[in-house]
Amino acid sequence: MGNCSQGCKDCFCRQKNTNIRLTLPVVCFVWQIAMIILFGVFIRYDEESNTHWVETKAHNNITSDIENDFYFRYPSFQDVHVMIFVGFGFLMTFLKRYSFGAVGFNFLIASFGLQWALLMQGWFHSLDPQTGKIFIGIESLINADFCVAGCLIAYGAVLGKVSPVQLLVMTLFGVTLFAVEEYIILNLLHARDAGGSMVIHTFGGYYGLAISWVLYRPNLHQSKRMQGSVYHSDTFAMIGTLFLWMFWPSFNSAITDHGDGQHRAVINTYLGLASTVLTTVAISSLSQKTGKLDMVHIQNSTLAGGVALGTAAEFMISPYGALIVGFFCGIISTMGYIFISPFLEKTLKIQDTCGIHNLHAMPGVIGGIVGAITAAAASESVYGKQGLINTFDFTGDFKDRTVLTQGGYQAAGMCVSIVFGVVGGAIVGSILKLPIWGDPADENCFDDEVYWEVREPATHPLSALNPHYVQL
Amino acid sequence: MGNCSQGCKDCFCRQKNTNIRLTLPVVCFVWQIAMIILFGVFIRYDEESNTHWVETKAHNNITSDIENDFYFRYPSFQDVHVMIFVGFGFLMTFLKRYSFGAVGFNFLIASFGLQWALLMQGWFHSLDPQTGKIFIGIESLINADFCVAGCLIAYGAVLGKVSPVQLLVMTLFGVTLFAVEEYIILNLLHARDAGGSMVIHTFGGYYGLAISWVLYRPNLHQSKRMQGSVYHSDTFAMIGTLFLWMFWPSFNSAITDHGDGQHRAVINTYLGLASTVLTTVAISSLSQKTGKLDMVHIQNSTLAGGVALGTAAEFMISPYGALIVGFFCGIISTMGYIFISPFLEKTLKIQDTCGIHNLHAMPGVIGGIVGAITAAAASESVYGKQGLINTFDFTGDFKDRTVLTQGGYQAAGMCVSIVFGVVGGAIVGSILKLPIWGDPADENCFDDEVYWEVREPATHPLSALNPHYVQL
Amino acid sequence: MGNCSQGCKDCFCRQKNTNIRLTLPVVCFVWQIAMIILFGVFIRYDEESNTHWVETKAHNNITSDIENDFYFRYPSFQDVHVMIFVGFGFLMTFLKRYSFGAVGFNFLIASFGLQWALLMQGWFHSLDPQTGKIFIGIESLINADFCVAGCLIAYGAVLGKVSPVQLLVMTLFGVTLFAVEEYIILNLLHARDAGGSMVIHTFGGYYGLAISWVLYRPNLHQSKRMQGSVYHSDTFAMIGTLFLWMFWPSFNSAITDHGDGQHRAVINTYLGLASTVLTTVAISSLSQKTGKLDMVHIQNSTLAGGVALGTAAEFMISPYGALIVGFFCGIISTMGYIFISPFLEKTLKIQDTCGIHNLHAMPGVIGGIVGAITAAAASESVYGKQGLINTFDFTGDFKDRTVLTQGGYQAAGMCVSIVFGVVGGAIVGSILKLPIWGDPADENCFDDEVYWEVREPATHPLSALNPHYVQL
Repeated sequence: MGNCSQGCKDCFCRQKNTNIRLTLPVVCFVWQIAMIILFGVFIRYDEESNTHWVETKAHNNITSDIENDFYFRYPSFQDVHVMIFVGFGFLMTFLKRYSFGAVGFNFLIASFGLQWALLMQGWFHSLDPQTGKIFIGIESLINADFCVAGCLIAYGAVLGKVSPVQLLVMTLFGVTLFAVEEYIILNLLHARDAGGSMVIHTFGGYYGLAISWVLYRPNLHQSKRMQGSVYHSDTFAMIGTLFLWMFWPSFNSAITDHGDGQHRAVINTYLGLASTVLTTVAISSLSQKTGKLDMVHIQNSTLAGGVALGTAAEFMISPYGALIVGFFCGIISTMGYIFISPFLEKTLKIQDTCGIHNLHAMPGVIGGIVGAITAAAASESVYGKQGLINTFDFTGDFKDRTVLTQGGYQAAGMCVSIVFGVVGGAIVGSILKLPIWGDPADENCFDDEVYWEVREPATHPLSALNPHYVQL
Repeated sequence: MGNCSQGCKDCFCRQKNTNIRLTLPVVCFVWQIAMIILFGVFIRYDEESNTHWVETKAHNNITSDIENDFYFRYPSFQDVHVMIFVGFGFLMTFLKRYSFGAVGFNFLIASFGLQWALLMQGWFHSLDPQTGKIFIGIESLINADFCVAGCLIAYGAVLGKVSPVQLLVMTLFGVTLFAVEEYIILNLLHARDAGGSMVIHTFGGYYGLAISWVLYRPNLHQSKRMQGSVYHSDTFAMIGTLFLWMFWPSFNSAITDHGDGQHRAVINTYLGLASTVLTTVAISSLSQKTGKLDMVHIQNSTLAGGVALGTAAEFMISPYGALIVGFFCGIISTMGYIFISPFLEKTLKIQDTCGIHNLHAMPGVIGGIVGAITAAAASESVYGKQGLINTFDFTGDFKDRTVLTQGGYQAAGMCVSIVFGVVGGAIVGSILKLPIWGDPADENCFDDEVYWEVREPATHPLSALNPHYVQL
Repeated sequence: MGNCSQGCKDCFCRQKNTNIRLTLPVVCFVWQIAMIILFGVFIRYDEESNTHWVETKAHNNITSDIENDFYFRYPSFQDVHVMIFVGFGFLMTFLKRYSFGAVGFNFLIASFGLQWALLMQGWFHSLDPQTGKIFIGIESLINADFCVAGCLIAYGAVLGKVSPVQLLVMTLFGVTLFAVEEYIILNLLHARDAGGSMVIHTFGGYYGLAISWVLYRPNLHQSKRMQGSVYHSDTFAMIGTLFLWMFWPSFNSAITDHGDGQHRAVINTYLGLASTVLTTVAISSLSQKTGKLDMVHIQNSTLAGGVALGTAAEFMISPYGALIVGFFCGIISTMGYIFISPFLEKTLKIQDTCGIHNLHAMPGVIGGIVGAITAAAASESVYGKQGLINTFDFTGDFKDRTVLTQGGYQAAGMCVSIVFGVVGGAIVGSILKLPIWGDPADENCFDDEVYWEVREPATHPLSALNPHYVQL
């Protein structure tokens, strides 16, 4: 049976029309034009990126340009940007023939989503009531990247099983849901979540899992030959892993408070991640008869500590606290790959290509819990009077909140993110189930040839030597 | 017919002597010794990188080391550095057997060129008349990297068709021409071009195209089997694409004004690039019968928005303006790959390996035009009185210049860059046509084995299975 | 003869038990728990990463958060972090079937080592006598990364020949020795070595070589088929090379003095490395009959200039001085690969997989000598009175030290690093020789299948076509 996206007549894949020549360009064009119009109406430079900065400086008695928020956040922003595009993109290249889709669609939906995120987050968080405008600066760009991260996490669950048009729809709704839950969690509940254990990872994880659950493919085994990795695809994936791992301290500190806030978030994340690596290796080795390591674990579970410190990294959890969080996350995440992922697939009918349940959902929930506990346990003796106020932003409407109450609201925030993920994902999944989006047939999943011009086809003589093909 | 750089007697490639054992080492040694002597005579640390900084600070009432220009520019510098070496280098690895040449020669000519750039740009822009010295700091390093970028762009047009010695000659003259045109455009015409739409991309693009035109190879089809990509070489190329894409905001903001200037350039470039991705995908999908995407477009055209914002990124073009620029650049650049590149090759006899006409030359010209128009349309009501003066540097000799005049000079600057590129490239191309540089025969183009020890030869049994080889 | 780590009965490798299912998890768990306890007892946030920073600021009359050391060092820290994990990791992926081990074990031992480094360096350098605590901040993280670098260098010598458990043991002792020699060199001798030519590269180089000498395998030729590179593994290795090369200016400037110190170290390293590339290319080309380049040289020797400027980068060696250092290092390092490595293996029985003698040990020693000479030659006329004091930290106990004395102590420091490396490595090598660590048999060296689940085995039909396999 040949490769049927080429137009041959007598094969299974004709059951599915994967032609996206109309839908993909239309969605891209309509969307981009809409963005231009909406940006024209709403988005303006903020006072630190405006040529009027020279007057702002004088007005606020700022003596040096280095006080511009740009210099506090730009290095972190660029690191986050690398995580979004190279980190997430390359992490998903592990499949033997889905590297183009992994890196390329990640690129597309991130670029698509960040524009919408600037608008959605702007409307919810920073719409100026007087002018009706959204004023953006470097922190807005970081937040847009964060928002997109939620959708890229969800992509991990459906990797290889959806069309790019479905991904765009998923991102459109994902960003919208994200902005709403983020508003509820950060503004209404006044929970702290600088690195997004809850708003990014828990939400994104459950959003993707719910979508994957709705889109369950009982015959996915038909593309089993494409589901594994090859040697070099695993090496490519390590590029993604390492850039995520190395820059996670920037992720968790990018929008924390200037000064000690950013400094502390970096230290905690750095330590937590180091700890995770060791327990991931330990469990991975334990899971094999001869103690061999599994690249799936090394590529993914080593990152769980960063996820789980997303909420508490800016708190005074102390260095050994960060190590403890990382310690357990490595264990839980790796065990997730060994025990929970097969269970989810068999029993709950959730096919999770990248194992985002182990890398994002579970560690995200752990991060939310750690955040709630450490917030509730905060004290003036550890933080100092002003330090406590600064860290939890106990000002304005919240100036009388106690740490115990804060802990409760943190926990409530985590529940909100789970509910938004699960319910939102189920609804969006139903939309994606419509037979109009050009998704691939079961036997063509995980294959770049469906949506990409591949110059060296998987069916050329070389593949005949691949043991998996030989079995066909 | 075997691979003849191995020394076999009866094949075509003996017509060309690709032995560079004499020329390459001689050029490298002579050049490096010359650099040491010239640096000894001319180059010194500037006042911010000198141990006398402690006195400079006291003299200028600077209270903190953080005011050192180093801290304003170093993060951007490192991003630019990554773009030059990893970005350009890996972007060119897409050919199936020219990855060593792509990354390796890129590495060589960038290292070679940046030293010469420090001297050339120093002589033109910052030679101290009293001491006869050039004082360098972090901004000089960025400018040297920028200057080298022009030559690396040109390399894209001749990739796989020239010897490393030719590349060094090309870089030597390229850097020289660059410094002169940059001096004319930025200093004499007082045009603004912080991200180099004109001085870097337009110049580099036409310089490379003119050289490629002079070096036209009518029988290049003889190496057709080597011209395509393979699956993993396309994945490697995406590393280059993404690092260029992600760090382009740093490129366009690296030498803009402290404070709002850098901040605004980042926002504009970030937005323009996001927009470009969507229209690139749309046009790429439209160009194929079943809507499949082409990696060539995704690897290259997604970057066109960054090129086109090189001049205007620091202006108040407003966020939606940046989106519009990116929107059209994605369309034009992708269409360039589909329609213009074949036309250039067939009709104008310009063989452009990487399609630099679509990625640099055209978007560069668009960037120059956008810059001229937005400069001419600038107003005190938008920029503020001082903001306008700061942005366009209407000080000293230029303090009475109007924005309309500025727009005219911007346009003039663009013409200068085109003329320098075309005329300079034609002359340098003629020099490179001399039969002394060890360039490869037509049937050995795009093959690393000509200039590299390749341990796994393309002629080993595996290649026999490659469909292209089978055709031989 | 099949692959015997699978448990088959009749083959050579049964002579060695490579089962690490007990030892690896036990070491990881015990170690990580020990780290948590020790961190709980000793490690605290320093005053700049503590919520009490708000009081510290007020107390020290600091007006802006930007004065927090975080903003001076964070960009450099992230670059160093990339060098440690991506740089060293990918540089070692050049072997055809040891990419998992290269990147993965590098990841493991770096994460393992940096925690121990924070403790060891803390005890020696910054234990607060009053509280008995170690206060850490961003500079501590950089120093921990630096300390780990020494062990990763040593890994290069034994790459492919040891088990992960041996690597952990090697790192444990390596970090310990490092902290002691660093204390002697930097604190007792008061030598300057910001980029670690001596404390990192010389020590790490000789430590690894001594270990490799003790672990000499006379029958290593039995795994000769695995020792080469393939096309894509060489391309992967270039990722490592380039990230090391590009970020080396950050490495050498990460912990130098604020202001001109960091600025100058960047300029010197940038220039030295550029110079090294040209001479490396020249010698590599000279070494082949037809002038072809060798990827081994390009991947490694191009970095030698950065190593050799580790000590002197912060001094006023002037730009042409940096070029000269790079010039000679490129020559010496490349010649090392051509002449010295074969000699070491044949005569001295030192098998150095990555050639760390050429990339780290020799250039490190050169760096130490350059540092000693330039320190001895420093003068008030060049540095300025205060500049001289700042650069060499002639304060406190050392306020009467002359530059000549300083030069002597620099030279003494270099000797200390060599002695610690050689003697320490010999002792640790003896420990690693015990037959309990699960190291591979001679014919299974350089093969990922010993310690990794490899889904696409090297023995599948494809490999049959590999000429090396054909020879079997």
